[in-house]
Amino acid sequence: MAGHDPLLTDLYQLTMLQGYRASGIGREEAVFELFFRSLPPQRNFLVACGLDMVIDFLETFSFSPADLDWLSSRPQFDPAFVRSLAGLKFSGDVWAMPEGTVFFAGEPVVRVRAPLEEAQLVETRLINLIHFQTLIAAKAARMRLAAPAAVLVDFGLRRCHGGEAGLLAARSAFIAGFDGTSTVRAGERFGIPVYGTMAHSFVQAFAREEEAFLAFARSHPGPVVLLIDTYDTVAAAGKVARVARRLAAEGREKKIAGVRIDSGDLAALSVRVREILDRDGLGDVRILVSGNLDEHSIRALAASAPVDGFGVGTRLGTSADAPCLDCVYKLVESGGEPRFKRSSGKATLPGVKQVFRSRGPDGRISDTIALADEEVDGEPLLVPVMKGGKRIFSERLETARERFSAQIALLPDELRQLSAAAPVHPQLSSALASMASAVAGGTAVRVTKNA
Amino acid sequence: MAGHDPLLTDLYQLTMLQGYRASGIGREEAVFELFFRSLPPQRNFLVACGLDMVIDFLETFSFSPADLDWLSSRPQFDPAFVRSLAGLKFSGDVWAMPEGTVFFAGEPVVRVRAPLEEAQLVETRLINLIHFQTLIAAKAARMRLAAPAAVLVDFGLRRCHGGEAGLLAARSAFIAGFDGTSTVRAGERFGIPVYGTMAHSFVQAFAREEEAFLAFARSHPGPVVLLIDTYDTVAAAGKVARVARRLAAEGREKKIAGVRIDSGDLAALSVRVREILDRDGLGDVRILVSGNLDEHSIRALAASAPVDGFGVGTRLGTSADAPCLDCVYKLVESGGEPRFKRSSGKATLPGVKQVFRSRGPDGRISDTIALADEEVDGEPLLVPVMKGGKRIFSERLETARERFSAQIALLPDELRQLSAAAPVHPQLSSALASMASAVAGGTAVRVTKNA
Repeated sequence: MAGHDPLLTDLYQLTMLQGYRASGIGREEAVFELFFRSLPPQRNFLVACGLDMVIDFLETFSFSPADLDWLSSRPQFDPAFVRSLAGLKFSGDVWAMPEGTVFFAGEPVVRVRAPLEEAQLVETRLINLIHFQTLIAAKAARMRLAAPAAVLVDFGLRRCHGGEAGLLAARSAFIAGFDGTSTVRAGERFGIPVYGTMAHSFVQAFAREEEAFLAFARSHPGPVVLLIDTYDTVAAAGKVARVARRLAAEGREKKIAGVRIDSGDLAALSVRVREILDRDGLGDVRILVSGNLDEHSIRALAASAPVDGFGVGTRLGTSADAPCLDCVYKLVESGGEPRFKRSSGKATLPGVKQVFRSRGPDGRISDTIALADEEVDGEPLLVPVMKGGKRIFSERLETARERFSAQIALLPDELRQLSAAAPVHPQLSSALASMASAVAGGTAVRVTKNA
Repeated sequence: MAGHDPLLTDLYQLTMLQGYRASGIGREEAVFELFFRSLPPQRNFLVACGLDMVIDFLETFSFSPADLDWLSSRPQFDPAFVRSLAGLKFSGDVWAMPEGTVFFAGEPVVRVRAPLEEAQLVETRLINLIHFQTLIAAKAARMRLAAPAAVLVDFGLRRCHGGEAGLLAARSAFIAGFDGTSTVRAGERFGIPVYGTMAHSFVQAFAREEEAFLAFARSHPGPVVLLIDTYDTVAAAGKVARVARRLAAEGREKKIAGVRIDSGDLAALSVRVREILDRDGLGDVRILVSGNLDEHSIRALAASAPVDGFGVGTRLGTSADAPCLDCVYKLVESGGEPRFKRSSGKATLPGVKQVFRSRGPDGRISDTIALADEEVDGEPLLVPVMKGGKRIFSERLETARERFSAQIALLPDELRQLSAAAPVHPQLSSALASMASAVAGGTAVRVTKNA
């Protein structure tokens, strides 16, 4: 419904474009950087996500004749200006952190160098794509840290904010260590493993619970996960054993791969259910739980209960404890001059920047934000992804997932905990610090973590 | 990108459909109801929103040949079952609360009567559409209550969760009393007034702030709102007066409609800016503020500062203090028999229901949840919106907006406050209470507001 749509933008992007053109500066080269000003206290790091969609968006940007007709009818625009938008494309160069990169407040994640009017015009959707997917990847990462060995599946679509959010949340969670999703389109579009169990309504639609279990298992070509909490969870676990025997007698061996518990005291119930299944020779039937889980309840269950997997919906798909981040896209250079903004509490660092990551002898990450043309030790995190408006970077989703996995493994322990660690402050190179101080007339600029 | 897509669903909807068909009960008539189990403590009511998209979705539901090809390749499905999905449509009847209706926990908002397999299949997207839009409308309503006379504009697109969320948030906020949005597509698609000012980057792109103001005003056929906090807000207010004189001398009278302040102490700055504007004969230039506003800061500013309007982004578009609601869609009848679920903490009321709203002599709202065929005093809130899979209800967006406005005006004062009121418990009719108790074997079912 929404998709990559040039009118899915703020009105001011178009009125500013009109202003740039009228002033003759629309084609001056400008550089914008997208970064996160601060992290919420309950996030020790973020995970870059959404770049692939950004490149698609920028590469295919154009106005349709119908869009231009509509704009022409608006009082905000000069019809000659609107006509001049036909054929406008994004022609710039883009550098970015590849998806799955762990990063911190203040670090540029995407850098756009393009004619001022183009770089400005794409701001809204660029933030919209990176902000949300990074938000979900960072939340999913915490869940993965909470249960390193468990199966984690995204069940969030129904309570995500709209359809696109559901689709992209599945992908973001997969990059940040989830095993799969229940969202079918995410399987088809992105090749993510798709998982599913059954709903209470299926059980309710049959006169007897056992009948529902049998009907589901018989109709399903593969192994199934049965939902056992519609009426009485412990009683249902006993029925699972009878159903398994019945299926085995029909030649359907090993048909029941797991059971799901979606309500009640999940820790206590999983212990009872495990005992019943084991007693009945169903030691390889796995126990999955779901129902308003977050990283804290996942950690508690993973540590103490016989739970093999977690279906995580609402709190993942909305990043419920921190549903938004302070993500901005700011002009840092135009006409070859560094630019900055002094607004109270929202000051920005001027100049075209790069992030260099090095690792001390203790293995700790140390990031330095520097000017892009400086020579600084460490690995540069921003890589070229578009040149002259064309994509020059693409990778398999698995590659982003492996990058995340490798980077998360190397984070210091205090950042891998769920509790708030002392915030990471990337260093500023001396050249960047000097430029900031010269341009801003001495205004101290520091990247901080909000309380 | 996502849109009304039959694969934008949970895998289990399709495997359950396979199970229903194999069991021969897929065409049995079933009734599902969508409701919100409880409200977060900081919401005294909700506002029904999203129905128009639900009707579109149901009326156009179908699988494409490409979707079916992909499903055929999956291990979860029997290819003959997948072939049988070609031509599947939604053929049911739908009753719903019209958009803009104020409602409470436990009340059915949408009721679907259809063959079991169809009613089940549409669950995920139906919740996805109603949950999000109702969430945003309820948040917007609080902002409107906080500032009854101010101009309220949605600026949320960039930090909404994906593109569809941004588009639908603009519409939801408009129904719940906002004046407009910055999202251009929402103007084109829904006819919502589109507002815009200018960004800091526009000011930064010029050597001098005044030059940026002049360039923007001259390029814009209509009146403009100038952003004055890029460097020094108070100094910029003085520049606005000079720019206004310059524009007047060019024959551009009344060109500056407003100024926007986006950072700093908005209350103090708006007082200083108002003084400067008034002193310079710009008494009709309005002051708009923005920057991480929520209903509490809006109320404080509306009460004490000379602020005429508010641009509200992130906290509206993500409903940041309560980004999700406990919205569910439950089987209440199948094969003509009432159905319920006893799961711990998630019990449901059986039977096909209606909500009747009456008003006591003191004007207070009193809602009764009853069986649909009962005779109960009051106005029934659920109306027929689809018959045999076809839309039979549509209305102008303005009508929904007027409904909201009329209903909100009649709410008792304690529900119109921003602080948490004692939760509203709709009454259960005696027939419904008897059925619940008979079917559930005496399980007490009560609609409560979670702490």
